[in-house]
Amino acid sequence: MSKVIINGVEDSKLSVSDRGFQYGDGLFETITYKNNQLQLWKEHLQRLNDSCDRLSLKKVDESLWLEDVKKLDLDNDSVIKLSLSRGNSARGYRYDEESNVTRVTASFDLPSYPEDNQSGINAIICKTPVSMNTALAGMKHLNRLDNVLARNEWNDKAITEGFMLDNQGHIIEGTMSNVFCVLGAELYSPQLEQCGVAGIMRQQVIDIAEDLNIPVNIVDISKPNFMQMDAVFITNSLIGLWPVKTITDGENDVTFQQNELIDIIRKRLQQLVAD
Amino acid sequence: MSKVIINGVEDSKLSVSDRGFQYGDGLFETITYKNNQLQLWKEHLQRLNDSCDRLSLKKVDESLWLEDVKKLDLDNDSVIKLSLSRGNSARGYRYDEESNVTRVTASFDLPSYPEDNQSGINAIICKTPVSMNTALAGMKHLNRLDNVLARNEWNDKAITEGFMLDNQGHIIEGTMSNVFCVLGAELYSPQLEQCGVAGIMRQQVIDIAEDLNIPVNIVDISKPNFMQMDAVFITNSLIGLWPVKTITDGENDVTFQQNELIDIIRKRLQQLVAD
Repeated sequence: MSKVIINGVEDSKLSVSDRGFQYGDGLFETITYKNNQLQLWKEHLQRLNDSCDRLSLKKVDESLWLEDVKKLDLDNDSVIKLSLSRGNSARGYRYDEESNVTRVTASFDLPSYPEDNQSGINAIICKTPVSMNTALAGMKHLNRLDNVLARNEWNDKAITEGFMLDNQGHIIEGTMSNVFCVLGAELYSPQLEQCGVAGIMRQQVIDIAEDLNIPVNIVDISKPNFMQMDAVFITNSLIGLWPVKTITDGENDVTFQQNELIDIIRKRLQQLVAD
Repeated sequence: MSKVIINGVEDSKLSVSDRGFQYGDGLFETITYKNNQLQLWKEHLQRLNDSCDRLSLKKVDESLWLEDVKKLDLDNDSVIKLSLSRGNSARGYRYDEESNVTRVTASFDLPSYPEDNQSGINAIICKTPVSMNTALAGMKHLNRLDNVLARNEWNDKAITEGFMLDNQGHIIEGTMSNVFCVLGAELYSPQLEQCGVAGIMRQQVIDIAEDLNIPVNIVDISKPNFMQMDAVFITNSLIGLWPVKTITDGENDVTFQQNELIDIIRKRLQQLVAD
């Protein structure tokens, strides 16, 4: 972390009573900062605020977040991570509705991804299932132990992502990304009513596809069906879109060919964040 | 919190990079300290260490925990909370297996529960489901947003506990307790293979029942079956055992009579922690 602003002040420490630490009682957003701009800022803020409503967490004024970002004194393209927790409290799950939230605004160097990832990454199927809870599904909350365990199932640098399944064997997402499949001239992506994070870049892809009259089917996708798609790609706010070249689940390998539809969507996505 | 020891030193703050805050990447234990003793210490330490193995989290030597507790300078009966996180890390779910854990040992005043709770509490059925994940089930990890949301569904001081269901409608646990049912001369308690916390006091009750030749059925319990039991009680490390007097789910109310079996088990439980 190059710099951290906590509740408007440069700092590096939090109270041990913070409910973020005690219970993962909070939310976060990971945002690309490029050419002096927070990419898709309105969308990130909207998701954060919508999730605040779902968790009965006090919303932070947009102006405060933007002041915090200013205080980071960014002079390079960066990753900005916003975290929002329910603040300090006494022991116990019960919270005081009046208590102040903790807001953390931090900058990080942009990761230097291999150029090769643009033509396709290698992925595995993880053994760790995704946590299921309709009351938490879709949100980028601080309860991420399932992603942590899944991401640490592999050490091989040639593997970039791992896909996580729900307890009924449906593909839900990558450990750090959303997933789309191409079959014929249509897109398929997992429904996230019971689990998973509804990514900002995922929604951009859905909107672009709609714009291009490409049908997007938000459905349950079993692992066998997943392995038989024409093509697969992943999305998140830092990587944009990467095609998947290979997937292995330890028993079966599948290799995907380059797919024209992915190239079309990626081009539109790149224009969108460049605007 | 009256006093906090972080990694052996009295402190009140943590790094904002701590994975406990970032992802809820850690564990905790809540222990009663009475008559200069940590109640059921071996059992708490065992669960913590078993969970460390499941999360590939570095275990902390018993001697270090006990030194930390000593540093709390306790002169009253207290609640001791141990927290263990995967320590600081860079951004991202991936962790460094060699990195140091963060251990937090904190003391709190013993809660002053109403004396009436011993004869029975009032409970509700919560709308927030419990999070399901076989890889996390049973552990007292730091991903507790489901308990937080469930506990904050009610404000009425006459309600002491809320019961949480899984996504198939099975009763799993209370927001802060495990649950047992009495039917005839047998006990029933939810199986926790997919979700829930396997409490220390729960295991004590199971052991006591075995000792008394009372059958304990660890099974799926639907809400309709739950509401038709002869009696219900809850357990945790601070309260020991409380009978449930009434349960309401907003539509149906059920009132339970005093039950002799509960009294027998409670007596044994009280002897056990007094030993």
